[in-house]
Order: sequence, then structure tokens, then C-alpha cells
Amino acid sequence: MPADEIQFVYSAKEMPKFATEPHLLCGFPGSGYVGKLAIDHIIQELHATHIADVYSSSFPPQVVIRTDGTVDLMKNSIFSWQGGETSLLLLTGDSQPTNPDSEYALAEHILNFASQFGAKHVFTLAAYITGVFVDKPRVFGTATDASLVGSFAQHNVLLMDSGTITGMNGLIIGIAKLRGISGTCLLGETSGYVVDAKASKAVLETLLSMIKVKVDMSNLEKRAKDTEMLIQTIEQQMAGRGMPAPESQQQQPQKPRNTGYIS
Amino acid sequence: MPADEIQFVYSAKEMPKFATEPHLLCGFPGSGYVGKLAIDHIIQELHATHIADVYSSSFPPQVVIRTDGTVDLMKNSIFSWQGGETSLLLLTGDSQPTNPDSEYALAEHILNFASQFGAKHVFTLAAYITGVFVDKPRVFGTATDASLVGSFAQHNVLLMDSGTITGMNGLIIGIAKLRGISGTCLLGETSGYVVDAKASKAVLETLLSMIKVKVDMSNLEKRAKDTEMLIQTIEQQMAGRGMPAPESQQQQPQKPRNTGYIS
Amino acid sequence: MPADEIQFVYSAKEMPKFATEPHLLCGFPGSGYVGKLAIDHIIQELHATHIADVYSSSFPPQVVIRTDGTVDLMKNSIFSWQGGETSLLLLTGDSQPTNPDSEYALAEHILNFASQFGAKHVFTLAAYITGVFVDKPRVFGTATDASLVGSFAQHNVLLMDSGTITGMNGLIIGIAKLRGISGTCLLGETSGYVVDAKASKAVLETLLSMIKVKVDMSNLEKRAKDTEMLIQTIEQQMAGRGMPAPESQQQQPQKPRNTGYIS
Amino acid sequence: MPADEIQFVYSAKEMPKFATEPHLLCGFPGSGYVGKLAIDHIIQELHATHIADVYSSSFPPQVVIRTDGTVDLMKNSIFSWQGGETSLLLLTGDSQPTNPDSEYALAEHILNFASQFGAKHVFTLAAYITGVFVDKPRVFGTATDASLVGSFAQHNVLLMDSGTITGMNGLIIGIAKLRGISGTCLLGETSGYVVDAKASKAVLETLLSMIKVKVDMSNLEKRAKDTEMLIQTIEQQMAGRGMPAPESQQQQPQKPRNTGYIS
Repeated sequence: MPADEIQFVYSAKEMPKFATEPHLLCGFPGSGYVGKLAIDHIIQELHATHIADVYSSSFPPQVVIRTDGTVDLMKNSIFSWQGGETSLLLLTGDSQPTNPDSEYALAEHILNFASQFGAKHVFTLAAYITGVFVDKPRVFGTATDASLVGSFAQHNVLLMDSGTITGMNGLIIGIAKLRGISGTCLLGETSGYVVDAKASKAVLETLLSMIKVKVDMSNLEKRAKDTEMLIQTIEQQMAGRGMPAPESQQQQPQKPRNTGYIS
Repeated sequence: MPADEIQFVYSAKEMPKFATEPHLLCGFPGSGYVGKLAIDHIIQELHATHIADVYSSSFPPQVVIRTDGTVDLMKNSIFSWQGGETSLLLLTGDSQPTNPDSEYALAEHILNFASQFGAKHVFTLAAYITGVFVDKPRVFGTATDASLVGSFAQHNVLLMDSGTITGMNGLIIGIAKLRGISGTCLLGETSGYVVDAKASKAVLETLLSMIKVKVDMSNLEKRAKDTEMLIQTIEQQMAGRGMPAPESQQQQPQKPRNTGYIS
Repeated sequence: MPADEIQFVYSAKEMPKFATEPHLLCGFPGSGYVGKLAIDHIIQELHATHIADVYSSSFPPQVVIRTDGTVDLMKNSIFSWQGGETSLLLLTGDSQPTNPDSEYALAEHILNFASQFGAKHVFTLAAYITGVFVDKPRVFGTATDASLVGSFAQHNVLLMDSGTITGMNGLIIGIAKLRGISGTCLLGETSGYVVDAKASKAVLETLLSMIKVKVDMSNLEKRAKDTEMLIQTIEQQMAGRGMPAPESQQQQPQKPRNTGYIS
Repeated sequence: MPADEIQFVYSAKEMPKFATEPHLLCGFPGSGYVGKLAIDHIIQELHATHIADVYSSSFPPQVVIRTDGTVDLMKNSIFSWQGGETSLLLLTGDSQPTNPDSEYALAEHILNFASQFGAKHVFTLAAYITGVFVDKPRVFGTATDASLVGSFAQHNVLLMDSGTITGMNGLIIGIAKLRGISGTCLLGETSGYVVDAKASKAVLETLLSMIKVKVDMSNLEKRAKDTEMLIQTIEQQMAGRGMPAPESQQQQPQKPRNTGYIS
């Protein structure tokens, strides 16, 4: 792998053949691990097939030590799945690139890869950070086309109408739009303080209803309950120390809070 | 768009044909949005024609969410207009590049583009930051040639004779000079604290008198009045809190203040 | 040497010919100089032969002044040695690259170089930082293959099962794994506060037992004793000033401390 | 000028023809402007001939405003001179590159340029920062070859025997050494607090005695006296405010102070 380059290492000689144009679903690591947890969950529950690992000299220069004591370079990984009328490409990873130029480059490479299979729609899953703990995380969204935006209401997705989405979750759909591929970014409301399986479950349910795929949610629900207990513990500790708890959530169902920060 | 590259996406197959050599007028986003507000105003009032969008992996890695809920990659945009004896290329944008190398590269690309149309003169509009609120913002200037500098007095432009101009507003005219294209940078006096439509109006009036184009200023005047009210509010708040107001402006009509900072 | 490039300057026209596939042993400068001290010691004691210097525009832009008043660019250097059944390539250096992309690139170049000689195994020596002074530094390890990990116990190497290894010591074995070359990283326990010849001696003894090479350790032992005296002095000074000494080491022989930091 | 590139713009079609192999003398801007002031002085006094300007996208992205109100991109400039047995290439500039890779690249380009004329020796002039004001600044030195170092004593140059020299002044002689060109760095003792024409005069006198060229020093002496008065003023102000003056210089004629920092 030369410097500044991105390398795909395929796990099989044969590329998957899809009966229908696949959706590309991206779960990059980011705030609260909202997107990554969701995509890792689908990969596991659907027993998706590993296609390729993606390495880049823009990932942090380090190896990850696995529980068996062996090491691997940081990477992104792409899986495939099909069932009934639906085909999926699923992307998960250890890291996003460490510099802007490489974020653009990785987004291009991933879209090139997905285009080989005729992918016409890409979903990215992100965090909508509010700084407060909430009981029922809302799901926000933005998309490349007015028609996609128009369908948000029927999936209970709150429409964003200002701001920016930074990093791979934004770039992938922004570059997709330039290439005539449609894209949707779904953002799960999260405090930003903890790994948030609850927010992850919320965006995943929305995504699954949009792409009409059913996945057993029990493992993610269990993790979501763990998140809930963690949040309660944090709130009790804060109360115990006389510290103000993060402002409790007021109902503002139709509009993102002005303090919202997206990544 | 490969990494480190700059891509022009044209909105029509046919390039505009100009009857006269066009001026290139640049309104990059920067301090007080002085330049961008001015160029956006001309584009709107003259109903200029969109020619191309310019994308770069050196722009911040993010998408901008529009009011209708759809997203776009960050970009610069170029428009054209002609009327009577005057032809114009107009550049406005969401961002300047995030690294110096790419600022040089973008300046080269924009000048290459303008050279195709025979552009022989480029204007950049910038902010002259003083840290104080003023009633009538002055307009400062610098240029690539002594003859241009010599004509400043008749347009009430105060000549700068030291310092540097950083970023695209400086680079574009500096690189233009190396290519035998003449360039002028006009800088509107501004506090640096607010989006300043008043400074923007001042530089725009100077520019229009130089290129002999007439534009209805009423919309910009309305925004300039908003700026004025904003400034009064800030000054009253400061007075109310017993804080010293930013030093009120003394008349120094022929010479920039030593504290001036340009961007 | 063009910018962004890595240049090998060979000291002889003839490359060494090895009777057996050589091990590549890397001693990059890093925390406590644990790895560099160890490899410099073997090079000196085995009178290894200088093969090449490696220059890179990613090394800090400076020259090092030698004791005779002459200067040299920063560099890495590669030596060779063979004896009995064992062949060695030894790498030591003034610096690691200053940016991540170049760390990937240098790791590739070094592995390319070693591959010419059929090298099938690479060892990197690193520091395992605990923030405490210890009497007998432990040696931790991680590797590219489960079989290598399985042999750690017989060499008293404690297995790491989580975390990351950052920089050249991690990248070299991570990239080696992708190329089908096996790799081991041995980490000597060190406080992180001093140049630690004691930790260096510990990893070196482990390495030598693994590759079955014998080296006179007396010079390194002398340096290790100097380290020990330095540590005692620091502890006495801390005690004298009523400062808490870095927490003395408790026996946790099978597991790295959670506070461990690796470089 | 494409991004990441270095461009030479020549002022004449004909390159100078030297009767003898020229010395390359470099005066980059740096601490105290010690080197730049010295080379600018020779260029002026010898009426050296302008050969080329050197532009780089690694220089700060800005234009410099001249006293007549016109602007120029930041650049380095190369001049030539010959007299009697001596030929000179003289380099001065507005800036050093802003990133390490480009410092390596610029050093290569400058040495390529000088090699065309058969240059076999390069001098760089730098600052030796001590943090104290001194009456008679000493001159320190380091070089690529032991024979050069051996001649330092006869020119009252104090030999450095440890440390590093960072930036263009170090890189140019380090890379020269790799190409078989000899190099000398002379460093004038300076506080680091002021533009120091006194230190500049000291290194220049040493340089001129080494290359056997005579230059009228009166203009630089005048600037040096200005420096002296500035230093006295600073010391008096410090005394007046009861602040400790920077430690006055003790005689340590044979050895640089341990606190010395070089740039």
C-alpha cells in the first residue's frame, strides 16, 4: 500500500452477483458509535458475507490488538447480503480518515466500488448530538433529493433544514449526489456522552422500515438497555455530587434543537 | 473527484461568448463576509448566468443542508453577465481551501478558467479589520501595477503601502501578476465583529464606479441598515455593562491604521 | 531526494548474501529508547555490516551535529549479520516519520527491502509505559499469528489482548501481516520518564532467546545499572521534596495494567 | 504554478557565466534576521545581478504590499556576482516553506540550480540564540567535512559539537553533503529578542574572511549601532520596571552555552 493510497483486499475471487440493485449502508465509527453499532448489528444478524477490507494510509498509523493477542491494521470492511427483493452492501470500520483530502478520496473509492454493483442509493447513519439524555431518541434526516425528503414524514424522520454534516457521513451522500446516486443520512438523537445503543436502535429501525428488511433486534435491544442503565447511573452520580444534570429533554418534535451538532 | 484535485462541473455545454474581455470579480467568504455579500448582491441584481460549480477536496469535508432539507457539497460557483461594453465573470463560494497548497492551486485553476475568456483584470473584495465600529467605512486598496494604484485617488480608495493580504484575495492577484494579468484588491473597513453589509456596500460602490456598471443597491442598503442597527445594539449593550466600547473612529483619511489586519 | 520520497543510499555495490532467510529486527527511537538501545547494542556487539542509510523528507527537517563538529541529515540505517544458522537485518534510526502517511510509506519501503532477502519474520521492539518505576521490567508481546502468540509463554512474554500499538512498531508488523510476513512486537515495561536501558535489556534478552543468538550483554548491563541509579536518585529527590513517588509496582504478572500505554 | 510545486522565474534568457566555481551563500529569513540581513547587505553593496525568483505553494499564502502600493507573491530571489577569483550565487527571501516536506524539496531545487554552475560549496548563515544580550556576538559553526571544521579556529569560529540545526539552514548543507557538495553553517550569537544587525555583521565578517571578498560594511555597521541602541533601551526599560535583565554574558569563549538554541 503506497502512501496516500487506498487499497481494497478482497476475500474471494468472485464478486457477489445481486438480483437487484443493492443499497449501500454505511456505519462509520463516530460520536456515540450510533452508526457503527447499527451496521455491525445487521451484519451479524443477517450473517452477511465478507467481500473486502479497505486499508488507507490516512487511517491512524496503528494496529489493533484482538482478544486472542494477534494484531491487525486499522481498516474498513464491506459485506454483502441479499434476501427477497432486497440487496445490501454494508460498510463498517475501525476508523475514518485522519485528514480531509483522504475523506474525499475514501468516499470516492467506496462509491466507485458500490457503483460496480449498480448501487443507486446510499444510506449513512450518524449521531445528532444534543448534550442531553433522552428517553426516546428522535431520528433526524437529510437527503440528496426533494422526493426522498418528502418521504421522511411517513417514517417519523424529522427534517433538518440548516447546518452541516461533517465527515464521511456527509461526504458520501454529497459526492453521491454529484454522481447521480441518491443518498440519505439518518441521525439518531444522542447526548454525545456515551456509546449509545439506544440511538443506534432508533436509526436502525427507521432504516429497516425504509429498505423493508426485517432483522431480529433483541441483541441490540439488550445493548440499548445497557445504555439506558449507564445513563441512569451517570444521572444519579451527578445528582449525588450536587451537579446539574444535563438539561432534561423538552418536547420539540418537529425541529432540531439549535444546539444540535452533527457528526 | 480524486483527492487533492479541483473539479469544475459545468451547467451548460456551451461556454458564454463575451463581446468584450471580461473582468473577473471574486467574492470569497471571509471576515465580515464583506466580499461575498457584495458579489452575491451583484449576481442576484444582474440575474447573472450560472456557468460552473467548483469542487475541491481541500474544502471542509462536509455537506451544507439547504432550507428544503437537501444537501450539497461545499463549493465555489462562477456566473457570467454582460451589458453594454462590460462583461463580467463573478465568483462566490461557501468556503476557501483549508490548506495553503490548495489555496495556490485553486487560484491557478480560477485564473486558468478566466483566461479562456481573455480576462485581463481581476478584482478581489476583502475586509480591512480595525476592531472599531465606524459610521462611514473607508475603502482601502492595493494592486499589481503602479498605473492601477495611481487611479485609486479618483475613486476615493486609500492606498495601502505595507502589510500583507492573506488567503485567496491576496493569492489571486499575486499569481495573476506573474501571468501578466492585472489585479486589484479592494478592502472595506470593518470592525471584524459582525457580518458587515455596510462595509460590503462601500467596496461594492467603489468597484461599480471602477468597472462602470450600475446595480440597484436597495437590497444591500437594507442589509447595511440591519448591520447598523446591530452595531448600535452591541454598543448599547457594552455601555450598559460598563464595558469600554470599541474605540470610536478618529479621522485618518489618508492612511490605514497601524492596527489594521487584512484578510 | 524529491519531497514525499524515501531514498536508500547503499554503502556497497554488492548486497549481502544470506545463507538463511534473515530476521528483520527494528529498533526505532521511541519512549525510553527501549527498542533503539537494544538494536544499537546488537549492531555494536556483533560488528554488524552497514548496508544502507534511509532518508525521508518526512523526517524532521534538521541536521544532527556529531561530536567532531560535522553534520548529517536525519536518517535510518540498516545493517546485516550472519552466524551459524541465523541471518539478521538490523534497523536503527535517528527518527520516525513526522506524519502518518509517511509512516505507512516507510514501513512499506523497509518491508520491500527486507523481502529482497527473503525475510519471513520481523521483530519490532517497543516500550510498554506504566508510569511507575519497577525493579524487574516485564516483557509484553503481540504478534501477527496465533502460533507466534502461542509460543510467548515459554519465553516469559506476557500476552496483550487489547489496545493498540501506534507508530512504526505497530505499522511494520501490521503491514507485514497483509503481505504474508509474520511479525512480533516485544514491549519492555518502562516508566516512560527516563531513557531505560533496563527495559531495553529485558526485551533484548527475550528477543535473543527467540532467535537463538548470543550477544555479550555487559555494555548494556552497565547502561542498565546507570538507569537503575538514575531511578533511585529520582525517587530519593521526590521523597526529599515530600512528593509522592510514582506508585511502586504491585505484582500483576499475567496481565498488563489498564493504565499501560504503548508506543 | 501547480500546487506542491516550486517554480523558478528567470529575469534574463542568458544564465550568468562564471569564470570560477561559485560559492552559494544563503540568507533565509529566521530568528533575528541574522542571515537575511547579511546576504541582503552583500547583494546591495556588490550590486549583484538578479537571476531568478523562486515561488512555492509552500510559502505562506499571501502577498506582500510594497511601499509603492503594489503587491508581490512571497518569494526567494537569487543573485550572482563575480570579482577577481571569486564567483558568488546569493540567495535571499521573504519566507521559508511552511511544511517539512517542502523544506526538503526547496533545498533540492536550490542545490540543483547551483549545481548547474558547478557550485561546490554552500554557506548558510543562521542565528545562535542564547536569550541574553551580548556586547560582542560570537560566531559558531558546523560543516559537512572534518577539513572545513579544522579551519574554523583560524577564523575565530567556535566549533559546535552537539545539537541540531533546524530548517533550511540545516537541510541545505545536510542534503549538499549527500550530493558531494561541501557545506558550512555559520551562526551569529543573538538574544533572539530583536532583529540583530550586530550578530549579522559578526557572521558576515567571518564569511567574507573565509571567501576572501571585501565589502563596505558601513551601512550594516549603522544598522548594527541601531541594534545596540535598541538593546540598551530594552535593558533600561527592564531595569526601570525592576525586572531582572537577561543574564549578562559570561566569557565562555570555547564552548556554546548549553541553553543555546539554533535556527
